[in-house]
Amino acid sequence: MPYINIKITKEGATKEQKEKLIKGATDLLVEVLGKNPATTVVVIEEVDTDNWGIGGTQVTELRKKS
Amino acid sequence: MPYINIKITKEGATKEQKEKLIKGATDLLVEVLGKNPATTVVVIEEVDTDNWGIGGTQVTELRKKS
Amino acid sequence: MPYINIKITKEGATKEQKEKLIKGATDLLVEVLGKNPATTVVVIEEVDTDNWGIGGTQVTELRKKS
Amino acid sequence: MPYINIKITKEGATKEQKEKLIKGATDLLVEVLGKNPATTVVVIEEVDTDNWGIGGTQVTELRKKS
Amino acid sequence: MPYINIKITKEGATKEQKEKLIKGATDLLVEVLGKNPATTVVVIEEVDTDNWGIGGTQVTELRKKS
Amino acid sequence: MPYINIKITKEGATKEQKEKLIKGATDLLVEVLGKNPATTVVVIEEVDTDNWGIGGTQVTELRKKS
Repeated sequence: MPYINIKITKEGATKEQKEKLIKGATDLLVEVLGKNPATTVVVIEEVDTDNWGIGGTQVTELRKKS
Repeated sequence: MPYINIKITKEGATKEQKEKLIKGATDLLVEVLGKNPATTVVVIEEVDTDNWGIGGTQVTELRKKS
Repeated sequence: MPYINIKITKEGATKEQKEKLIKGATDLLVEVLGKNPATTVVVIEEVDTDNWGIGGTQVTELRKKS
Repeated sequence: MPYINIKITKEGATKEQKEKLIKGATDLLVEVLGKNPATTVVVIEEVDTDNWGIGGTQVTELRKKS
Repeated sequence: MPYINIKITKEGATKEQKEKLIKGATDLLVEVLGKNPATTVVVIEEVDTDNWGIGGTQVTELRKKS
Repeated sequence: MPYINIKITKEGATKEQKEKLIKGATDLLVEVLGKNPATTVVVIEEVDTDNWGIGGTQVTELRKKS
């Protein structure tokens, strides 16, 4: 009965990509730990690039430079 | 001073229902553990049905079948 | 299929008290939002009083004063 | 490689304020624990005032009284 | 720069299994969303079976029945 | 009434360092957003190096190489 929380920046992930994340994360827990998929929960949270920082810099600013 | 985080799918919970969740969760911690309600924090997070999966399936798809 | 995370300071909550928190939080989501209890997950996390602060003060220190 | 999650009520924090939170939280981990800023992640989550409660009361209602 | 949090009950996952979870979750984000693995963070949290409930029942009790 | 969650690897942070993290994070929210310190909560979680990965590698292994 694992709970997996995936946080990503909000940059256009599609419904299909989210489906793959949900399927892939569930399969991972089944394969590695033999968990029951029926009670495995995956929650994806999309965070505005203004609200995410790495190395002390806002992702919004990092994206401008790259 | 407990912190309670309630994650639900975003499917139309009303302001009144959220009030009941906040009140109910706070009361629960007071009753069971004698916690101080004044510093008990409840945060409700509503998640798009595309972003929630159980049993490896997106809730958006589960809702279509039910 | 809600997910409820309860964080409390580690100060001796018993197995029975935890059972009451799990039962009470599940019932709350069923009553207020009509959620399915079978897929409602409750996770309790106990945090050392050195690791919890409120008002800028460690709970370990607050307990000494009270 | 710390991970810092800051949850605040959604009440108009600006891009500049979020930058200061990201910078300040990263600096704090570097100064206090000597962590590597390059792999320090800060995620800010803004929560509707209907979805946040303290003392059993919705922040939306607390704001009306204050 | 995704952040993945995996919560499981504390029931003896080995260092090797945790390595597989870390590797697998990182690969998943790279494959599905093209994320940079270098800044992908995976945190596994193991929770006592007394502290996890599903269907209103403590996992400790569920394990006795199964 | 912000809630700040700091996750770090469990590598010997002292009570005094944790006090500084709690004080510093609380001050940050007061300075940047004018938040009320009395209801600002900081929770530090220390995670075993086996349970933390970056770049697909367990921190336990990264530490051996560095």
